[in-house]
Amino acid sequence: MSSSAQIGVTGLAVMGRNLARNFARNGYTVAVHNRTASRTHALVEEFGHEGSFVAAETAKEFVAALERPRRLVVMVKAGEPTDAVIEEFAPLLEPGDMIIDGGNAHFADTRRRERALREQGIHFVGMGVSGGEEGALNGPSIMPGGPKESYDSLGPMLEKISAKAKDGSPCVTHVGPDGAGHFVKMVHNGIEYADMQLIGEAYQLLRDVAGYSPAQIADIFRTWNTGRLDSYLIEITAEVLSHVDAATGKPFVDVVVDQAEQKGTGRWTVQIALDLGVPVSGIAEAVFARSLSGHAALREASQGLAGPKPTPMGEAEASAFADRVEQALYASKIVSYTQGFHQIAAGSQEYGWDIDLGAVSAIWRDGCIIRAAFLDRIRAAYDTRADLPSLLSDETFAREIAEAQDDWREVLVAATRQGVPTPGFAAALAYYDALRAERLPAALTQGQRDYFGAHTYRRADRDGSFHTLWGGDRSEVSA
Amino acid sequence: MSSSAQIGVTGLAVMGRNLARNFARNGYTVAVHNRTASRTHALVEEFGHEGSFVAAETAKEFVAALERPRRLVVMVKAGEPTDAVIEEFAPLLEPGDMIIDGGNAHFADTRRRERALREQGIHFVGMGVSGGEEGALNGPSIMPGGPKESYDSLGPMLEKISAKAKDGSPCVTHVGPDGAGHFVKMVHNGIEYADMQLIGEAYQLLRDVAGYSPAQIADIFRTWNTGRLDSYLIEITAEVLSHVDAATGKPFVDVVVDQAEQKGTGRWTVQIALDLGVPVSGIAEAVFARSLSGHAALREASQGLAGPKPTPMGEAEASAFADRVEQALYASKIVSYTQGFHQIAAGSQEYGWDIDLGAVSAIWRDGCIIRAAFLDRIRAAYDTRADLPSLLSDETFAREIAEAQDDWREVLVAATRQGVPTPGFAAALAYYDALRAERLPAALTQGQRDYFGAHTYRRADRDGSFHTLWGGDRSEVSA
Repeated sequence: MSSSAQIGVTGLAVMGRNLARNFARNGYTVAVHNRTASRTHALVEEFGHEGSFVAAETAKEFVAALERPRRLVVMVKAGEPTDAVIEEFAPLLEPGDMIIDGGNAHFADTRRRERALREQGIHFVGMGVSGGEEGALNGPSIMPGGPKESYDSLGPMLEKISAKAKDGSPCVTHVGPDGAGHFVKMVHNGIEYADMQLIGEAYQLLRDVAGYSPAQIADIFRTWNTGRLDSYLIEITAEVLSHVDAATGKPFVDVVVDQAEQKGTGRWTVQIALDLGVPVSGIAEAVFARSLSGHAALREASQGLAGPKPTPMGEAEASAFADRVEQALYASKIVSYTQGFHQIAAGSQEYGWDIDLGAVSAIWRDGCIIRAAFLDRIRAAYDTRADLPSLLSDETFAREIAEAQDDWREVLVAATRQGVPTPGFAAALAYYDALRAERLPAALTQGQRDYFGAHTYRRADRDGSFHTLWGGDRSEVSA
Repeated sequence: MSSSAQIGVTGLAVMGRNLARNFARNGYTVAVHNRTASRTHALVEEFGHEGSFVAAETAKEFVAALERPRRLVVMVKAGEPTDAVIEEFAPLLEPGDMIIDGGNAHFADTRRRERALREQGIHFVGMGVSGGEEGALNGPSIMPGGPKESYDSLGPMLEKISAKAKDGSPCVTHVGPDGAGHFVKMVHNGIEYADMQLIGEAYQLLRDVAGYSPAQIADIFRTWNTGRLDSYLIEITAEVLSHVDAATGKPFVDVVVDQAEQKGTGRWTVQIALDLGVPVSGIAEAVFARSLSGHAALREASQGLAGPKPTPMGEAEASAFADRVEQALYASKIVSYTQGFHQIAAGSQEYGWDIDLGAVSAIWRDGCIIRAAFLDRIRAAYDTRADLPSLLSDETFAREIAEAQDDWREVLVAATRQGVPTPGFAAALAYYDALRAERLPAALTQGQRDYFGAHTYRRADRDGSFHTLWGGDRSEVSA
């Protein structure tokens, strides 16, 4: 077997298979390998006509098929399976070769692996891939981390297979060293959770408060999709809502069990944000909303708890309300992204990644689940000012939120009075109001902490740490 | 040196010192030890008259001073310092001896340490202690985990030094095996965060919306403290708010920098809740609110963002509003505790701890930071029905929330319209409304997930997992 393949993919479940096909369709010779060889042969049999594949039955054959420096893409489950594959292949590689992990690894694992492989001279690239099966095949958004020099050789290939934004630029960039790529992919998924939760709340309000049917709400989302909310998630929301269940003739959304699942990355985003001290309340509420939905027994036991039942509106009122919901959704979305980008900035600083936030928003413009016209505006905001303290400081976003906010508040007032749960909208507004508040009750919190635990406090009028002798004469001492 | 001490305390910072004095004052002979021996001698010198102390300069002396089975309380910093002390003492101990960790350890560390020491026949007791310095001295709430048999010997001593509830029962119980005690202490602290955040929001509303001065608000809290909100935190809030800064003559709360700190346990509570799939949105918002307050540059940059400025009310209106805030605070507090107890129940199930939730609320009735009359009602709720699905299912709490809710909602409406951040109140109400909702937008979420990731969904009308061929003829297939 000659070393003719420019890239190899091991792990040929649907994501790996589609990524391999994507490379092949773009003119690369792709070595393919799977623990069960039958899957490898099935791939070549079924899709061999799409391009040039080299089927490898063993790890040795696989490595031998790759031209140097070898580029070996691992598409297996995050966690132990990934470690197992690395342990299998690393001894077969030579300095300068690359192992590229395209799974949803925890960035701390990626950092650990990168460090370990670096000692062997192997370049480890933790690579976030978003876009699902279809994206993997036709052009995903790709978030590779790892050593800069590996991007010099790998980047052009990724740029070829990635999605392209409207302006033609590929949806891939070197995010930063070691775990930066997987970190950014994690936050991408956290933002995706928040986006979906906000859409869900908008749907619920249009259904229960405005009184629209799923089909009518689908039309509203279609209209929204022609404006500033133009995005993949809004588009597919319309598709899902307009779908009618063939078996019952009911709206599809009414026959689906209303219990959502939460997998690793959403939860991780919040856990890491807590470690970094970054408030990501919108993402947290989205993860919690999914958990809550799954607690069937608890929900069952809570039926009949007191509270208002929404009274659907008349036609004219409903239409005006729908416009307000669009404002609330858009404003809350700005806040979600503000929180997500804050987390990326904080991670970048903590780990010395020097991430270009504008470049991150640019590569999310297409290919990934949260792709949206909106991302181009975030890119523009960071292009205008790379050290933007937060998205809310961008003039355009600040103006839009200013315009949205009466409606945003009134939507929340309606939800509050009518008993429709809107944890995402509410968390977003509370974050916004807290940030702009001149004074926060944190001063009281510090006073309490000093009272019961002598934790000390700072004064607004002079430097130092102080403690009040609460149990004594209440004089103040320097701490 | 004769082995005369019934208990030993190593680590004589303020918590360790006060705990040692508490044991001594209760008639026990207490061996005391510290890395720096000067602190040991200082303790005996200053407080020797309070009881019987044995000062030990070395680890060996310390161990030798203890009667068997030895009871060795470790009061050092959580994390590596705790491991270091264990490594130092474990080799000097014999089977049946106990190491009692009274620090704020992460329960996973406690599980690890318990497992390791069990192999040596040493009983490791992870013991949560709440009440601050004063509690440690005069009677804390104590949450010991670890082997049941160690409680047989240790329990009576802890019962003697612990706080006593109004009915005379000691605020200590054997919480459960291995990490159960530290887990429960962690959630205690999470609930403490939520309580403090809710109090902060109530304060802010009374200040900015009702227009009361800190002194007036202190009086309101004093009144509340005579009712169902009767608790240590409400009591000290009144003290802090009525305190006047001597240097400036201003209300103390106005001279304190409004940036609060968040330490390990609040963050851990949320992180672990995410792992367990338990929505603890109230605790999360409290942790995030503290983080947000500390982001000074971000807050600075957000000054001037658009939004309403509250207009203080007239006298009569303000007084009615204050009553409403009490209702909102109380209802939100019920939700916080519902979430916290849900987390304890989930942890107990996950780790097989068999925790008695009624007993936990009973030992929080006094001694700890969240001590409150309210806890006795939670105990009563679990005494009536040990398998209560949630506190909201308790008849009394359900009725109180029913009565509170118009006010709860109107307080949130005022906060929303007037731009006062109330993330805690809002998260609590959203949780309540989500739990009682007949249908949640999670059905739409599942439809979206099936659309972009073939994640499948369940149907309300029949068993199985299903997938719709979204890219094809949209027929449904079994998955």
